[in-house]
Amino acid sequence: MNQSPPATQLDADGRLRHLLTLEGLPRTTICALLDRAEALRAQSRGGTRRLDLLAGRTVINLFFEPSTRTRTSFDLAAQRLGAQVINFDIASSSTVKGETLLDTVHTLEAMHCDAFVVRHKESGTPEFIAQHLHSAAAVLNAGDGNRAHPTQGLLDALTLRRHVKDFSALRIVICGDIRHSRVARSDVHAFSALGVRELRLCAPAELAPDPGEFPQCSIFHDFDAAIASADVAIMLRLQKERMQAAAIPSEAEYFQRYGLSTQRLRNAAPDCLVMHPGPINRGVEIASDVADGPQSLILQQVADGVLVRMAVLAELLERD
Amino acid sequence: MNQSPPATQLDADGRLRHLLTLEGLPRTTICALLDRAEALRAQSRGGTRRLDLLAGRTVINLFFEPSTRTRTSFDLAAQRLGAQVINFDIASSSTVKGETLLDTVHTLEAMHCDAFVVRHKESGTPEFIAQHLHSAAAVLNAGDGNRAHPTQGLLDALTLRRHVKDFSALRIVICGDIRHSRVARSDVHAFSALGVRELRLCAPAELAPDPGEFPQCSIFHDFDAAIASADVAIMLRLQKERMQAAAIPSEAEYFQRYGLSTQRLRNAAPDCLVMHPGPINRGVEIASDVADGPQSLILQQVADGVLVRMAVLAELLERD
Amino acid sequence: MNQSPPATQLDADGRLRHLLTLEGLPRTTICALLDRAEALRAQSRGGTRRLDLLAGRTVINLFFEPSTRTRTSFDLAAQRLGAQVINFDIASSSTVKGETLLDTVHTLEAMHCDAFVVRHKESGTPEFIAQHLHSAAAVLNAGDGNRAHPTQGLLDALTLRRHVKDFSALRIVICGDIRHSRVARSDVHAFSALGVRELRLCAPAELAPDPGEFPQCSIFHDFDAAIASADVAIMLRLQKERMQAAAIPSEAEYFQRYGLSTQRLRNAAPDCLVMHPGPINRGVEIASDVADGPQSLILQQVADGVLVRMAVLAELLERD
Repeated sequence: MNQSPPATQLDADGRLRHLLTLEGLPRTTICALLDRAEALRAQSRGGTRRLDLLAGRTVINLFFEPSTRTRTSFDLAAQRLGAQVINFDIASSSTVKGETLLDTVHTLEAMHCDAFVVRHKESGTPEFIAQHLHSAAAVLNAGDGNRAHPTQGLLDALTLRRHVKDFSALRIVICGDIRHSRVARSDVHAFSALGVRELRLCAPAELAPDPGEFPQCSIFHDFDAAIASADVAIMLRLQKERMQAAAIPSEAEYFQRYGLSTQRLRNAAPDCLVMHPGPINRGVEIASDVADGPQSLILQQVADGVLVRMAVLAELLERD
Repeated sequence: MNQSPPATQLDADGRLRHLLTLEGLPRTTICALLDRAEALRAQSRGGTRRLDLLAGRTVINLFFEPSTRTRTSFDLAAQRLGAQVINFDIASSSTVKGETLLDTVHTLEAMHCDAFVVRHKESGTPEFIAQHLHSAAAVLNAGDGNRAHPTQGLLDALTLRRHVKDFSALRIVICGDIRHSRVARSDVHAFSALGVRELRLCAPAELAPDPGEFPQCSIFHDFDAAIASADVAIMLRLQKERMQAAAIPSEAEYFQRYGLSTQRLRNAAPDCLVMHPGPINRGVEIASDVADGPQSLILQQVADGVLVRMAVLAELLERD
Repeated sequence: MNQSPPATQLDADGRLRHLLTLEGLPRTTICALLDRAEALRAQSRGGTRRLDLLAGRTVINLFFEPSTRTRTSFDLAAQRLGAQVINFDIASSSTVKGETLLDTVHTLEAMHCDAFVVRHKESGTPEFIAQHLHSAAAVLNAGDGNRAHPTQGLLDALTLRRHVKDFSALRIVICGDIRHSRVARSDVHAFSALGVRELRLCAPAELAPDPGEFPQCSIFHDFDAAIASADVAIMLRLQKERMQAAAIPSEAEYFQRYGLSTQRLRNAAPDCLVMHPGPINRGVEIASDVADGPQSLILQQVADGVLVRMAVLAELLERD
């Protein structure tokens, strides 16, 4: 957390030039993005009114991993700001035909584009692209490997801020495959910057982070202990193949040990808020009645996702 | 036909809230949609002028079956009204990754969308979605299983209305795989509501509807008898696998018995109009010279399809 | 070159009605398109400002071969003129289900479209479509078989014109698989019409054009000889399967004989300009340091591609 952010993310004046990670981003920058998202919520009347802040701008969705949910969220965000969007289908692209990643990027840049929204299974790809751009285009990381998913961290903060007055009183637990989760990392960076009281990370031993990666967090392997008196529980999606790595014999067993049931939720603080980045595996990491229950913010997270992406696009592309 | 429509389709005031089926829709509602389509034909100058009735609205094409033709028609319809369109690619979506249908729908709803255009191989899926929405979004059925394809029924009525003064004098024959055809069902509902004189359904015995499903229609297995003195012949696309189910040994044999040839068309009323929902199998259910001949309305149907879809979108989404 | 253009390309007044090939197009027509592209560069402020010349118009990208690069260029060009774009996915279209090509085209026409941008592996498909249209829609050839890629020829001319005062002094060499290259053909047609001093085509014997196809060009098999004193070197992408046909044992061997290295470039005229239609195979037909070097216009070609396509769309669709 005390590492400095990647050089390419901020310009000489400390202004955001790309959004690659929340790691090291100042609290003021994060809060400014959240404030902008709230302003856009009002201006767009909850997404029902098209703005023209980015009229004439081109946003390219460059997804090397399939992700309808996040891609659609960025697509809508850009369109609702008046930008034109190109969804670049990697499966049929020249990248597959042997063109290098950077040749693809430079080609799209030459067609004039203002932003690349990049998802890639290799950590660091968005930063790599940002470092090699020819133009003033912005790069928005839409998820890279296990490293970062910064708009997810921001949207989780935005959703939480609508329900919580004082972050400094909050105990947050994040449960699941922490080791491989870019969501967990970006959440930790966001909530640390916003000064929460306590961050607990809970995972099976095999899926726990390396010791020392998260000095500001306490690490748990026992979810019952981890959730005790928590104000917020963030459940991570379980990749089935990770379950086997964790030597957990079945989904039922995983749910028994690490799933959020109504009963387990009673051990948390009263009105503990429940979050999940989606898509959810009902009955695996979360019980259906919890996911759909009154403490769940899951769909609010989705709604806030579009607004946060609008805010980031506006901040990065509006300058002239 | 005297069944009431699904509860979810009309609101308490009898206004259309979703378009799931034409079954049970009052004639006045159908006529209002057709009138609206004609008004939009004029306003959009035949589709060459973009309107802004639905500016700021989001339409999601949620196609679980491939259909470039119908999807493109809805896409153009929504764009020509000024809406933004998201074509949701199901093959790469989380639905495939195990997310439930309703989780996918609720996620898209949370991103704020005004309409779902749904095609699904299971009958009843659009109604199921409509019953479980969280928001005021509208559902438009773009074809569900064998059950309904209401915009096809409406567009067929629109096309026919431009050529025919008096529906009460019309004898219409629909020929092909009636049993499995959602087009046939929606056509029967549309034309019954509009009060045609006679509706004949012609199919091989194996592809005929269950006795009693269409009390208002006469059922034929002999196309020569069915087409005699008909004013309109609507030919259905033959799915090759159905032909085998009907124990018809070849396409040539099917054409011989159930295809619309120039010669057979002479047995119909003079100037009998020829329709087909497309895509056509030339030489199977219809001869090329009939499909391309002066009595064919096939391409007019396609043109009217965009207008009918504009009308439905406008009616469902315009209210505030 | 003295053949007349296909009858369908020009109307009775000699105005461009479709863009199928540059073969036989008068120099004045080509120059008018290039001038229009430069005017659009200024009007659109380098592509950053959306124009509304084609508001309400519909452009359909009908790509039967995958091509993200060219399709994206046409998509952006149309959107930046205010048109709505439908990317018609052939893989999931009815064409695959047995509908004929012309039925697909006529169906899309009936939905009202103003232009078809067509790529197809069979030479002549765009012309075939143009000859069978029912409406006043325009056809733009985006590459057909080995025959033509006219917007590539135009963009190469546009890029070159920005760097060269006098075409009549130019020696241009095109190197690679000339025999199978639609780019080479359209380049030859463009540069011949613009009156360059000398056009050299260099290829392995097996990939050379038929004798007599290009009477205005000199044919080389030795790239060192061909590039001597050339002012422009246009390198073609090598399809790997063609290399085998040419009995060249490896990419290294191809590069040795037909690749553009820094050393070989020294044999050309000083400041010889380097071009490539992309995507490039680094180290096969062109060395990385040449592709990225100061004499390379490769990315400028990409940028000009969008402008040329805007110009063609504007010229073809603006008339009323």
